[in-house]
Amino acid sequence: MSKKLTTRTEDYSKWYNELVVKADLAENSAVRGCMVIKPYGYAIWEKMQAELDRMFKETGHQNAYFPLFVPKSLFEAEEKNAEGFAKECAVVTHYRLQADPDKPGKLRVDPEAKLEEELVVRPTSEAIIWNTYRNWIQSYRDLPILINQWANVVRWEMRTRLFLRTAEFLWQEGHTAHETKEEALKEAKLMNNVYATFAENFMAMPVIQGVKTESERFAGAEETFCIEALMQDGKALQAGTSHFLGQNFAKAFDVKFANKEGKQDYVWATSWGVSTRLMGALIMTHSDDNGLVLPPTLAPYQVVIVPIYKNEDDLNAISKVANGIQADLRAKGISVKYDDRDTQRPGAKFAQHELQGVPLRLAIGPKDLENGTVEIARRDTLTKEIVALDKVSETVKSLLDAIQENLFKRAFDYRASHITEVDTFDEFKTVLETKGGFISAHWDGTNETEAKIKELTKATIRCIPLDNKPEEGVCVFTGKPSKGRVLFAKAY
Amino acid sequence: MSKKLTTRTEDYSKWYNELVVKADLAENSAVRGCMVIKPYGYAIWEKMQAELDRMFKETGHQNAYFPLFVPKSLFEAEEKNAEGFAKECAVVTHYRLQADPDKPGKLRVDPEAKLEEELVVRPTSEAIIWNTYRNWIQSYRDLPILINQWANVVRWEMRTRLFLRTAEFLWQEGHTAHETKEEALKEAKLMNNVYATFAENFMAMPVIQGVKTESERFAGAEETFCIEALMQDGKALQAGTSHFLGQNFAKAFDVKFANKEGKQDYVWATSWGVSTRLMGALIMTHSDDNGLVLPPTLAPYQVVIVPIYKNEDDLNAISKVANGIQADLRAKGISVKYDDRDTQRPGAKFAQHELQGVPLRLAIGPKDLENGTVEIARRDTLTKEIVALDKVSETVKSLLDAIQENLFKRAFDYRASHITEVDTFDEFKTVLETKGGFISAHWDGTNETEAKIKELTKATIRCIPLDNKPEEGVCVFTGKPSKGRVLFAKAY
Ligand SMILES: [Zn+2]
Ligand SMILES: [Zn+2]
Repeated sequence: MSKKLTTRTEDYSKWYNELVVKADLAENSAVRGCMVIKPYGYAIWEKMQAELDRMFKETGHQNAYFPLFVPKSLFEAEEKNAEGFAKECAVVTHYRLQADPDKPGKLRVDPEAKLEEELVVRPTSEAIIWNTYRNWIQSYRDLPILINQWANVVRWEMRTRLFLRTAEFLWQEGHTAHETKEEALKEAKLMNNVYATFAENFMAMPVIQGVKTESERFAGAEETFCIEALMQDGKALQAGTSHFLGQNFAKAFDVKFANKEGKQDYVWATSWGVSTRLMGALIMTHSDDNGLVLPPTLAPYQVVIVPIYKNEDDLNAISKVANGIQADLRAKGISVKYDDRDTQRPGAKFAQHELQGVPLRLAIGPKDLENGTVEIARRDTLTKEIVALDKVSETVKSLLDAIQENLFKRAFDYRASHITEVDTFDEFKTVLETKGGFISAHWDGTNETEAKIKELTKATIRCIPLDNKPEEGVCVFTGKPSKGRVLFAKAY
Repeated sequence: MSKKLTTRTEDYSKWYNELVVKADLAENSAVRGCMVIKPYGYAIWEKMQAELDRMFKETGHQNAYFPLFVPKSLFEAEEKNAEGFAKECAVVTHYRLQADPDKPGKLRVDPEAKLEEELVVRPTSEAIIWNTYRNWIQSYRDLPILINQWANVVRWEMRTRLFLRTAEFLWQEGHTAHETKEEALKEAKLMNNVYATFAENFMAMPVIQGVKTESERFAGAEETFCIEALMQDGKALQAGTSHFLGQNFAKAFDVKFANKEGKQDYVWATSWGVSTRLMGALIMTHSDDNGLVLPPTLAPYQVVIVPIYKNEDDLNAISKVANGIQADLRAKGISVKYDDRDTQRPGAKFAQHELQGVPLRLAIGPKDLENGTVEIARRDTLTKEIVALDKVSETVKSLLDAIQENLFKRAFDYRASHITEVDTFDEFKTVLETKGGFISAHWDGTNETEAKIKELTKATIRCIPLDNKPEEGVCVFTGKPSKGRVLFAKAY
């Protein structure tokens, strides 16, 4: 806790890695690419889960749970999906260990306990779920099915980073089944909109809603909607995706239903997910060189009270005041922690709470007792004010609102100043290398051009924004005609 | 939904299997031994989770998340634990699939993508967690660590049954680290007590708290506390366990701390867990030949309202009344569903809600409209009463309380009448075969006798009850001296 963080300008990537570990959010484990999510980090994830879960239920979804494993023969049924994930699959081949005859006290895989068919550890659950839905759906009366699952998934990534890209991660995956194409498309858009609302109102993170180009689409989808955010280093981050899957999985798993006219038809599908990657997005959107900065809506505790005392008598008097404040704040629905540990000095406590992003810190010392005041420090602006005791709870309430607003506004302004329209490829490259952020440019609509630009600049098309204005123009790379701008960026 | 359930007396085991599937709780999946938990079943599990999670947090625990995989070398470090689980381990050996050169469109495991060290899919997480705790603990100031994890685990069982024994199941596992033996023992007992409180107050399931004999202990534990329940077929079910692990894991993973005197010592540990097995216990404790019976505290919805109508006008008038009732009930914190589906007749709806164990069913027909009444049916007693509209919400409130109490009392009385003291082995065998339930008998305290009795009768020692009275006696099997009775039963 003692050593300062690397600053963002020194080394953004190092700053992030240090922050995640020092703020006690997560750490690497003994398993390559898998993380341990520590209690403080997990408490933030739980707050995210609670809000999202509420929003899913309010839009008519129910939770369920499907198996961790997918038999290989099911996994390969939807070819594009299988192709897309095959290279990242952890595979269970045996179901037993035994004493190693050559090494006393050690175990080995029992060669006799080989599975007839290998099991893939789910990288995503479309295959196992659509194989199940086949038995649940006979007629239009069985539709829609609106199910969500909170689960762990595994994608064997070669380069991993805490929260942003890990071999195992936690997520939710919605899987819905519908009578018509229109209804499925509406669902996919609705859930993308739920993600956007969550990102903006709870994470205080502005996002752009859009659709992916073909090459960036989910393997097996006909259309992928997404929310894209911008990090402080000018790189974009895909924060959530919602897929219109057409009838691809229904066809692969033979899921038909009798429609209202009594005819058999394949079912229409969507799937949508956000993951612990959101933790990375949250961290990189708001934090500073002193550590984590959290929006009050997602902070494990919104307020910390630190007593400043020289002796037991002082502490007792301060604790009395602190207890009153705690009761007032809790009655207002504000979460608060009284940090009266006697193993740490106030300075160390201040540093820790700053590093961990507690939105408001209240300090009470002997002088405050005399004057009937409390010192309140804001984490987002690092400003302090002295407040009279009888004004504390209303001040805290309004400061928390102000912090939530300020974080969103700060991130919004940053993003607004980092969407740059360019009309030549030279401009494109210059902006990308100097300023970063989203580049709004015309594109000729071909995979080829997209791939070529990526190869030359590492920038990809993050999305075609849903609210794009039609605009005649020419492709920034090929000069061919284009009907609207798309957003390019380097991305996480 | 049409066919009646097999009755409990016809075939208890078949009754259970049918009920789980027909009440839409869970079903078998395409993966051997793994279940799909359906939305209605999952909603009950979510209610269990919410209560338990609250109780864990109230006793000072925090949630965190540790990796799904355990490297084989860590898994084998605590020898007894490794031995105990080795035979049930799913093992990941490869991290990639590739196109099968012999079968177009099919995939195979990429032989080049073999892991240097195999990964065990966690059957329980002591190994990975204690390997992590080593880095978190230096001094007594770092203790206690009080962490819980909600997760999936895999134990490759040969004979599986929905909820009761599945290859993958959901659970929570607490893992705590302490300075002293006394503190760890206290924690293990405390959490067993939390389980007992949850089982009795929320599941309405009476349990006996006890300790396991050495042969029934968790692999790697020094003492296993447990809660044992009795099912309607006279078989016992272990519903939760809490282990005092001594310093076994600390020694295996070299987790030492500097104590208050500055001396190095190994850390003391506990672990404790309950799983989706509780769903099986809940079902078998209360349900009847008509289907599921749920305690109101865990029912996905506590009240269902069914309109009985011949035409649109009737339905509109009934819906108006139903909406008023719903608002009143929700204001009282009661969950309610209005089942106005036009795809089902009232009779079919009644049967479904009965099968799914909804505690109270309200029916409103044209006659009720005339008379200003509602018909209320209790699921537990299958009794009905007509209630005046202005008394509905208070009646519902008091009936829900009555149901919760009645279910507990019924289960308690059943259990009380099925604990039988026996003093000879003939009696033992007769009671076991005719009446079932717990048999309270003297035992000489040896593994040998315990094993012999199990071999001869299939009964095991479920526990030595915590509130056992000392009583001099002789072992029911060997005639050797004994200082107290223990509880035997056949068990799930
Ligand atoms: Zn800039
Ligand atoms: Zn009986």
